[in-house]
Amino acid sequence: MLKRPINLLNKFSKFSDHWSPKVVAEMNDYQFKLAKIQNEFTWHSHLETDEVFLVIEGSMTIEFRDGKVDLSAGEMYVVPKGVEHKPFAKDECKIMFIEPRGVVNTGDSDGELTAKNDVWV
Amino acid sequence: MLKRPINLLNKFSKFSDHWSPKVVAEMNDYQFKLAKIQNEFTWHSHLETDEVFLVIEGSMTIEFRDGKVDLSAGEMYVVPKGVEHKPFAKDECKIMFIEPRGVVNTGDSDGELTAKNDVWV
Repeated sequence: MLKRPINLLNKFSKFSDHWSPKVVAEMNDYQFKLAKIQNEFTWHSHLETDEVFLVIEGSMTIEFRDGKVDLSAGEMYVVPKGVEHKPFAKDECKIMFIEPRGVVNTGDSDGELTAKNDVWV
Repeated sequence: MLKRPINLLNKFSKFSDHWSPKVVAEMNDYQFKLAKIQNEFTWHSHLETDEVFLVIEGSMTIEFRDGKVDLSAGEMYVVPKGVEHKPFAKDECKIMFIEPRGVVNTGDSDGELTAKNDVWV
């Protein structure tokens, strides 16, 4: 039986909203989420977990209180738990997050950018 | 302070051996590992954990007892825990694994393809 892979660009083609992570896979109690991002997100931190950003297409910046990291396609960064960060992308950027099931996109900064959790695509 | 991203192709340029995963990042108690693979691996399973394959460059196949999945760059697959699988790549393929720290590449099938664990690049 031929099983189907998860094709990331195909999954990205199925949604267009920004800052609204979509789950594409689960591994144990972790989720792989895709998001299209553009402009500034809100300062926030995740008190319970590290969070991985992997850029699939485009480029983005993650600002920290003590600096920043610029990420392009094929680059990743682990934001340590509890560290305040603010993602930003000048132009639309396609990214994958990896984090435990249940993590809310805005962490400790609930607000209008808080997305519905556990939405699959 | 400008922080450094993890550039996957740069990391791949630092080693050439096959079937020998190299750790590039940790998230909580999980590791992100890169490997170059070619030809057949051994049948094995991981009894304690799911395992994610993400193809960065090239293409590969994961054979299962009841079928297979073909993966190309930008495609991923989650091998469920306990499921026997045999990775294969006709030509050299660059992949990323995501799995808990401590997982051995050959799982329950220790042998000459068993790689040293927790090697960073």
